[in-house]
Amino acid sequence: MRRIRLIIAYDGTNYCGWQKQPNGITIEEVLDTALTDLCQEPVEVIGASRTDAGVHAYGNVAVFDTEKTKMAADKFAFALNQRLPEDIRVQYSDEVPLDWHPRKRDCEKTYEYRILNRRIDIPTERLYSHFCYFNLNVEKMREATGYIVGTHDFTSFCSIKSQASSPVRTVHSLEIYQDGDIITIHITGGGFLYNMVRIIAGTLIKVGMGVYPPEHVKEIIEGRDRQLAGQTMPAKGLTLVGIDYYED
Amino acid sequence: MRRIRLIIAYDGTNYCGWQKQPNGITIEEVLDTALTDLCQEPVEVIGASRTDAGVHAYGNVAVFDTEKTKMAADKFAFALNQRLPEDIRVQYSDEVPLDWHPRKRDCEKTYEYRILNRRIDIPTERLYSHFCYFNLNVEKMREATGYIVGTHDFTSFCSIKSQASSPVRTVHSLEIYQDGDIITIHITGGGFLYNMVRIIAGTLIKVGMGVYPPEHVKEIIEGRDRQLAGQTMPAKGLTLVGIDYYED
Repeated sequence: MRRIRLIIAYDGTNYCGWQKQPNGITIEEVLDTALTDLCQEPVEVIGASRTDAGVHAYGNVAVFDTEKTKMAADKFAFALNQRLPEDIRVQYSDEVPLDWHPRKRDCEKTYEYRILNRRIDIPTERLYSHFCYFNLNVEKMREATGYIVGTHDFTSFCSIKSQASSPVRTVHSLEIYQDGDIITIHITGGGFLYNMVRIIAGTLIKVGMGVYPPEHVKEIIEGRDRQLAGQTMPAKGLTLVGIDYYED
Repeated sequence: MRRIRLIIAYDGTNYCGWQKQPNGITIEEVLDTALTDLCQEPVEVIGASRTDAGVHAYGNVAVFDTEKTKMAADKFAFALNQRLPEDIRVQYSDEVPLDWHPRKRDCEKTYEYRILNRRIDIPTERLYSHFCYFNLNVEKMREATGYIVGTHDFTSFCSIKSQASSPVRTVHSLEIYQDGDIITIHITGGGFLYNMVRIIAGTLIKVGMGVYPPEHVKEIIEGRDRQLAGQTMPAKGLTLVGIDYYED
């Protein structure tokens, strides 16, 4: 038996998220089908990040076990891409120990939230960014990030549907880049609560619009109430950039 | 009677190009339908650039005439966007003289050809760039651009299906930008032959791969033979950035 690890990029537009479900097609299901065909044995992947419907990824991580296949571990990426639709692409594959579990190890996750900030939407951006008509003050958004970085109780930035045992998380860094009309929120942390990045994006957008002063974000955190923070921004602006497991 | 000018951005993925045709839906047809509905009179646009199937635009230009509508010229962009699918967005509208024709005036057109140059494709790039597995030498591509800029007989860079009366065109500038895995060919000129930008892209890619030395591009131009140049690259990597009519 071998355990193979995959680094996977996908365009989430046409999927009901990562995790298998009865109502629509998911990334996990497509991977399992392709791997079962490739390995000629029943295969089920274990994913690191169960991204929501419409969320994109450059580097989600998954593992699977295979008994039968003798293929070299690094060749799985290429062989699997022959069997996958073009909106899912395995970037890399290698072998890991049989007990290596992508959700049970210390790691740092990096996400990006992309905003198109201009008067009228650009069609080629519509699938991968959130269009915002209001002129955003990026300097004020940057000021607000200082209150979010660090270890906090993020109840205010967590969907009430969350089943997490603790609302405490650590944000390692939170940067805002601007390139013409595109504003990118770049965030890394040791794990995020359900919808946390999209709620942080919604809160920073309200700061950028002038609805909240930057220092109000401190009160939002301390209030521990989801209703204090901004909206959950649409999934299409969010991309899981990558997961760093330190040891590798 | 008034003549209204539109600056139009679109994602060409789902269209059979600009120009109306019996076999599929086109940008022109969608605009005519939306304008006829908005103006409550039969409207037909005249487009500046009849882009091919799959080609994108940030700033194509079109005009139409309206007798009935009293709407302020700058409001057409917003009113029209309410009636257009999200992959077509009018960026701007204004009034021009009744004899202002978008194809019969001196202008400079700018195109970009986008290449994703890495080992494995990224799904979120697949609709808007050409994926190239071979490592491209951007410095050599830049060397080759010097032979293309200027006024030349571009027969070697023109589809044999062209109906142009003269193969002479002037390329004003040709720059190659690199941003990580993305290589962008940025070209401006006083007009281009049929498929000319996509054939220049195919030729520069061959230079970047080392198939042609940069100075071979001079021979390709002088040979006046389409078979000497590189392939016509796929439409999806091409975007009409904009058209500058100088006088405005």
